[in-house]
Amino acid sequence: MNESQGRFTKRGVDYPIIDGMRTLPGRYYHSRDIYAEEVEKIFYKFWLFGLRAEQIPEIGDYQLVQIEDESIIVLRQKEDVFKAFFNVCRHRGTKLCTEPKGRFDQNLIQCPYHAWTYRLDGRLQSAPLMKEGHGFEKAKCSLHEAHVYNWDGFLFLNLDRNPEPFEVRMEALVNKFREWEMSKLRIAHHIRYELNCNWKLILQNYQECYHCPGVHPLLSQWTPVHSAQHDYSKGAVIGGFMDLTRERGSMTMDGSAAGPPVGCVGGEDLQRIYYYSVFPNLLLTPHPDFVMYHHIIPQGPGKIINDCYWLFHPDTIKDSKSQEGIRSAVEFWDLTNRQDWQVCEQMQQGTKSKRFTRGYYSGREDVLLTLDHEVLKALGHTIEDGDD
Amino acid sequence: MNESQGRFTKRGVDYPIIDGMRTLPGRYYHSRDIYAEEVEKIFYKFWLFGLRAEQIPEIGDYQLVQIEDESIIVLRQKEDVFKAFFNVCRHRGTKLCTEPKGRFDQNLIQCPYHAWTYRLDGRLQSAPLMKEGHGFEKAKCSLHEAHVYNWDGFLFLNLDRNPEPFEVRMEALVNKFREWEMSKLRIAHHIRYELNCNWKLILQNYQECYHCPGVHPLLSQWTPVHSAQHDYSKGAVIGGFMDLTRERGSMTMDGSAAGPPVGCVGGEDLQRIYYYSVFPNLLLTPHPDFVMYHHIIPQGPGKIINDCYWLFHPDTIKDSKSQEGIRSAVEFWDLTNRQDWQVCEQMQQGTKSKRFTRGYYSGREDVLLTLDHEVLKALGHTIEDGDD
Amino acid sequence: MNESQGRFTKRGVDYPIIDGMRTLPGRYYHSRDIYAEEVEKIFYKFWLFGLRAEQIPEIGDYQLVQIEDESIIVLRQKEDVFKAFFNVCRHRGTKLCTEPKGRFDQNLIQCPYHAWTYRLDGRLQSAPLMKEGHGFEKAKCSLHEAHVYNWDGFLFLNLDRNPEPFEVRMEALVNKFREWEMSKLRIAHHIRYELNCNWKLILQNYQECYHCPGVHPLLSQWTPVHSAQHDYSKGAVIGGFMDLTRERGSMTMDGSAAGPPVGCVGGEDLQRIYYYSVFPNLLLTPHPDFVMYHHIIPQGPGKIINDCYWLFHPDTIKDSKSQEGIRSAVEFWDLTNRQDWQVCEQMQQGTKSKRFTRGYYSGREDVLLTLDHEVLKALGHTIEDGDD
Repeated sequence: MNESQGRFTKRGVDYPIIDGMRTLPGRYYHSRDIYAEEVEKIFYKFWLFGLRAEQIPEIGDYQLVQIEDESIIVLRQKEDVFKAFFNVCRHRGTKLCTEPKGRFDQNLIQCPYHAWTYRLDGRLQSAPLMKEGHGFEKAKCSLHEAHVYNWDGFLFLNLDRNPEPFEVRMEALVNKFREWEMSKLRIAHHIRYELNCNWKLILQNYQECYHCPGVHPLLSQWTPVHSAQHDYSKGAVIGGFMDLTRERGSMTMDGSAAGPPVGCVGGEDLQRIYYYSVFPNLLLTPHPDFVMYHHIIPQGPGKIINDCYWLFHPDTIKDSKSQEGIRSAVEFWDLTNRQDWQVCEQMQQGTKSKRFTRGYYSGREDVLLTLDHEVLKALGHTIEDGDD
Repeated sequence: MNESQGRFTKRGVDYPIIDGMRTLPGRYYHSRDIYAEEVEKIFYKFWLFGLRAEQIPEIGDYQLVQIEDESIIVLRQKEDVFKAFFNVCRHRGTKLCTEPKGRFDQNLIQCPYHAWTYRLDGRLQSAPLMKEGHGFEKAKCSLHEAHVYNWDGFLFLNLDRNPEPFEVRMEALVNKFREWEMSKLRIAHHIRYELNCNWKLILQNYQECYHCPGVHPLLSQWTPVHSAQHDYSKGAVIGGFMDLTRERGSMTMDGSAAGPPVGCVGGEDLQRIYYYSVFPNLLLTPHPDFVMYHHIIPQGPGKIINDCYWLFHPDTIKDSKSQEGIRSAVEFWDLTNRQDWQVCEQMQQGTKSKRFTRGYYSGREDVLLTLDHEVLKALGHTIEDGDD
Repeated sequence: MNESQGRFTKRGVDYPIIDGMRTLPGRYYHSRDIYAEEVEKIFYKFWLFGLRAEQIPEIGDYQLVQIEDESIIVLRQKEDVFKAFFNVCRHRGTKLCTEPKGRFDQNLIQCPYHAWTYRLDGRLQSAPLMKEGHGFEKAKCSLHEAHVYNWDGFLFLNLDRNPEPFEVRMEALVNKFREWEMSKLRIAHHIRYELNCNWKLILQNYQECYHCPGVHPLLSQWTPVHSAQHDYSKGAVIGGFMDLTRERGSMTMDGSAAGPPVGCVGGEDLQRIYYYSVFPNLLLTPHPDFVMYHHIIPQGPGKIINDCYWLFHPDTIKDSKSQEGIRSAVEFWDLTNRQDWQVCEQMQQGTKSKRFTRGYYSGREDVLLTLDHEVLKALGHTIEDGDD
């Protein structure tokens, strides 16, 4: 690490010296107004992770994805074509589907109220007794569509009418984990956590290991804190990795691999755990032998659902000899997650105090400043000096 | 049906052509501000159904009616005189009665806090230890009174200080159902529904049968959808009827009458089911042999209580041979109600989407436009063109 | 009682004639805005009762006190020194303690997130890996402190940066009950009540006995209503007393003393029950033989927690012969409390009506006008004439 003139570089990355730099003011975790702004300017505007393609395996299968007030029907229209529609009938606004997932009979989406019927591409097929010409045009009554992008089996959604292209926004991600062949992986386990904290605290927690020695003794044993490094990051993607001390190890209760490496992962990647936060709602943790990810679903300024999934190769999932390894990977991360949730919830509570204005970042928390700036840029906010 | 120049007539009623006319914007079902305006300008200002006279049978009997923040004591002061008072002591504002119904001991209303005591006509009878003359005058401390009107056994209330006379506002209702002799009927059954939708969606649902073929297969069998017609309506009253296919039929599980005709109902009324919405909170459905009604009690923009009652002649209620018919009428409407609640709740959910601006009415939903205008007129709102 | 020119005097105290004087408008019990103002201008600014010193008996013991959004750590730093700190780490705002009470290991307060560590005097002892000089100075990162005052074993807190001195604000209290030697008393019993009313209604209820004949028949037997008198009061302290009819009596189920007199209470104090409201959150009721007090904790405009405690001399608490007396004192006040809560909650409900503007005070409720003025003065409000 070289340090000079208020900046330092680490493995070629240029960092500002940030010891003593200030955190966001507390209102960014508690204000209903700021949260409403975040919904408009971040969750209704940016690419969000929605679900895995494997969760709607057949043509005509759908699953609902809830983004704040918006219910989105994500369906498989053709073998490799996914569509996303606002779950709202064009007649009088009735919610079309209420079951969280299912299959459209005869590949038609029918409103239960007055039987208006749509095709899988969203076009209105029939509207009983409606006459065209007095303000009503069938061709203008297709379902409202949202954008979908399938990245390695992760379906991302965008509710904005004219979103920035996925490949631009997610440049640092697009080809990053090709060797993992993630589109071939399948969900082996899922745990839903309901947490009382702001969504940004989870991202912050994920991107620094300053807290690891005290909070995660086991994790710190398998991947030493000092090994944490950040890659060059761009757009919505911030990432880094930590080194596994143990040859062919992984993040499990005993530190050994849970299964064979996935895809064609090799070389130094066999000794690394990657931590990539895909702003704003996906935390992606590729291991040599599996992928763990968190899907963060804000429920207000102080509440989130965190859906945590473990992806393994289907052969590993079927292999009876691998069950203990999978179980151990789940147990390790469930333990580690709960350690994190506890301190995130305490930070949520503490920052509510009027006496908390802004905190201080240590040098180990440099990336959090980048996250804060990403939020402020999206909202069009600047923090005044008087805010501390 | 004759159609010309953008209007058509049906049984002498002149309708605008409305295919493609637009619904209310979604905010009218969700906004807390609009709901607060509705409370002020509709629920605190217009005549509302409160309860049946039979529910307070004796002098000194009372029942509480809750209208948003206002608790109203409705009591029988004399044989045929009903009074309504705000449930608030004039001393320091204590709620006088907490039991939902009861009888006033010695015909006196006594505050439990400091024992101020009022007569059944609302006058302050005694205020212990209060001295007149320093700003306090007993004669000015009568209970605050609300208006009551007894229409055929239905007690309507009005919280406004100077309401429009009931007979003017309800002109289309006053003599409409005289043959049913409703004041002689009694409640045979009651079901309370708690629904997650805006109160207006229930009125809309009640006034169109465009949804009947898909939602109500049984109802559509007893009363064909094409038979639905609207009477001439006025003020707060919008009504129509449908024809019973079956001779001496009614709305029961097997389509046969639940009991003998009530009052002196005869002629074509023996083959009709009437549907009258008495804006804003009573839906009245006279059958040849009984009367079903809904009492709608809003609990916020997205929540209502719907109290559904079945009125029969007291002789029928006592007659053991009629029990099966009553049971069948209750079962039929409970089934039909639940079919309606499902789609109303889905419409509530769907219209919350930002992408829902305004829907389209079909020709079968003409009366809903009248309902929308009634709401907008009461609120003093106009919908701008840009709202779609 | 002498009355002249719109004023009267009673035992040397000069009162305005208030029959017919008006109460606060209803919004003072219901408005979220007014409540928020009260939090800022009363609860975050004035001296509040927090807890008894005996509840943190040893050095390093702490208990949390929640004041609206603020969690305060109150700890015993030295034998006779108490400290209060905002429960917020200076690093990134994490809540330091979550257990409602406990003891600090090695007399150090450590943040569970990144292990910043503070001494019992609030100074930051260590912040791992933080470098001084780039905006971070350890000496400026002590815990935020609140003020503490130990009055006869009652620890009062003040969250304001520059509070009015306790001795000035509480002048009428400071030496008032010296004979009770309250610092030596101990908690014999505690009941928590959760009530649906505004905090001010409890203070009002406590300071008038106009309601006693109807609401408290037993209390009125042991202490006749006409004996109620108010002392000269000052600042935050309003107090008075009632006479015990029975020689060596007290407030118990049979009216006899629960134990021997406490401290060196003697003379006419042996025949008196004192009622002192220490604005805004302590109601102190010294009896000859014990002290009962209410700790009022607002939870919003229409909700409070009321923690009721009974203090006795430790010898009495240990004495098996006194158990029945203690039980009887608890039973008496629990009965009386519940009678009061019922009418306070009904007043909360009734004053929500739009028709309730302002009520009327009787001559027996004179002190309530003083309480109202205390609130209005703190808020900087005046009530306009048009408010009635």
